[in-house]
Amino acid sequence: MDQNKLKIYQEMLKKGLAEQPRIEEIVEQVLRNELKNIFLVGCGGSLACMYPCKYILETNSQLPVYIYNAGEFNTIRPVQFNQNSLLVLSSYSGKTPETVAAANYAGAIGATTIGFTGEGDSPLGQAVDYVFTNQAETGVTASKIVLLYQIVFNLIKRTDNFQQYDQIMAALATLPESLVQIKQQVEERARQFAKDYQDQQFFMILGAGPCWGETYSYATCILEEMQWIPAQPVHAGEFFHGSFEIVRDDTNIIIFKGEDKSRPVTERAETFSKKYSQRVTVIDTKDYELPGVPAELRGYMSPLVLSAVMDLFSHYLATARNHPLSTRKYMGKVDY
Amino acid sequence: MDQNKLKIYQEMLKKGLAEQPRIEEIVEQVLRNELKNIFLVGCGGSLACMYPCKYILETNSQLPVYIYNAGEFNTIRPVQFNQNSLLVLSSYSGKTPETVAAANYAGAIGATTIGFTGEGDSPLGQAVDYVFTNQAETGVTASKIVLLYQIVFNLIKRTDNFQQYDQIMAALATLPESLVQIKQQVEERARQFAKDYQDQQFFMILGAGPCWGETYSYATCILEEMQWIPAQPVHAGEFFHGSFEIVRDDTNIIIFKGEDKSRPVTERAETFSKKYSQRVTVIDTKDYELPGVPAELRGYMSPLVLSAVMDLFSHYLATARNHPLSTRKYMGKVDY
Repeated sequence: MDQNKLKIYQEMLKKGLAEQPRIEEIVEQVLRNELKNIFLVGCGGSLACMYPCKYILETNSQLPVYIYNAGEFNTIRPVQFNQNSLLVLSSYSGKTPETVAAANYAGAIGATTIGFTGEGDSPLGQAVDYVFTNQAETGVTASKIVLLYQIVFNLIKRTDNFQQYDQIMAALATLPESLVQIKQQVEERARQFAKDYQDQQFFMILGAGPCWGETYSYATCILEEMQWIPAQPVHAGEFFHGSFEIVRDDTNIIIFKGEDKSRPVTERAETFSKKYSQRVTVIDTKDYELPGVPAELRGYMSPLVLSAVMDLFSHYLATARNHPLSTRKYMGKVDY
Repeated sequence: MDQNKLKIYQEMLKKGLAEQPRIEEIVEQVLRNELKNIFLVGCGGSLACMYPCKYILETNSQLPVYIYNAGEFNTIRPVQFNQNSLLVLSSYSGKTPETVAAANYAGAIGATTIGFTGEGDSPLGQAVDYVFTNQAETGVTASKIVLLYQIVFNLIKRTDNFQQYDQIMAALATLPESLVQIKQQVEERARQFAKDYQDQQFFMILGAGPCWGETYSYATCILEEMQWIPAQPVHAGEFFHGSFEIVRDDTNIIIFKGEDKSRPVTERAETFSKKYSQRVTVIDTKDYELPGVPAELRGYMSPLVLSAVMDLFSHYLATARNHPLSTRKYMGKVDY
């Protein structure tokens, strides 16, 4: 792994953590309106990275939370979205038309908006009330998750009598060190995976709970978008009610196993998969040390651990296949 | 198409419609408690058939609605699920362990439960407050959607000043005739599809809004579970942010195009798909007559039209492939 990229990755995490005072101010301003619900809206990877926040809210908060693809959000216009809503949006380019349109719609009806984007003067950056910029060569997703966590946990602290806020902030502060350690530790395994699976033509990716976002984005944004390999994301709990019937002993299955409440759901899918396929790869966040993170908070960190580990898997897979992660046929190349 | 099965299908729809008085009573009882939110919980096809209700509620109601795989629901236990919640559950066998466990959890905390199951004395039937039985050789999904619609629209009528209730009930009453007509009309097209696609090894199924449930279940429950053909459900709005990069001129794509608010999202995916693949099948609900259904209500009927059409596609595909829809490797055959 490129040491310079590792350094940038770490700096992006630290930069995200350094925003805590500003986030606390923003949350204070957001709460001056009577906050009724939260909408998480984006497309593809920018949507997927918000799934852990859905989990955090649904397991800790009385605030209703909804997650939408921006195109669907704009056309169906959920009736509960109004001037008492908080809309969190994300688009790295800041130009995704659906996401910019969602921000403009929110502005027109008076909802509060927070946006994540590469550059503050992008269309998305200009359309939102509060903008976080995250332009970098690497580390964008990890820093965004850390920023989102600070926002969401601060909101819960102030609205739901949540006691673990300080502990969680302290746990997040350990990540720039430990996630870099994990990346270094996983290097050999990632290289071996690439060697074993570089010629495969279909993958099934399983996960649940806060790890669903990584499950979904690893299949659709890494394997399909960046490697042109068909890859189906399957919710580990849903697996037994349809998709598992296509499993054969040579089906490539990657399982994302977090330490959150949904772990038993994923374990069940793991047991079955290992029994009927010879080609199962389990990424278990439990295998990775997170010094300074109490056991009961490790589940929240699982999406970040998975993302760190899978960055390496993607890198070595692309290298082995001689198919750079940046290659596209259509995205940004043709009109659609 | 077997005329006897068509008759059963029609009778199941009529049986569902005949429950209207009982449904109105049940809704009245449900509303005696202060109703705070609605949870739709199940697995696989039994979960997928509830997606249209999510759409109806989010576009018409101030009641928060959440949809969960039963396994995930049981492990994460959303904090907003309490004695003021309505839990709607579905399991045809009535024995799906996750779904029965969800009903029992609801009972323990005092939430109200409505269940759909083949037989009333099944574990699910016994665990819920109100049970609807729907045992039949065919027509189970269609009758269940009609029952769910009556419940949800009646709830909205009473809680959200919804004006179209009587019109929608009148529109639903036309379906036993028109859906059978549609099934007869689509027969030749379904037979041709089976002939053209019987040897294919991968499909992408696209849809959005209230048609997402059929998109998801056609891929995972019909093509994967019942035909053992890998098939990925892709949200039409998400398509452009990952999965579309695997499209080649020989990629098999089936598009479910409803007449609901999300139609433009699906149209965009259709335009792209037809430009870059030679193997695109579009099921557009607009092509099918629904006498007595006003134009502005047709969107709600789209999931039912799609389900009627795709029943025929499944039947002829299974016949052409000599792989009965009832064949399973694992489901109900091995422990998991």
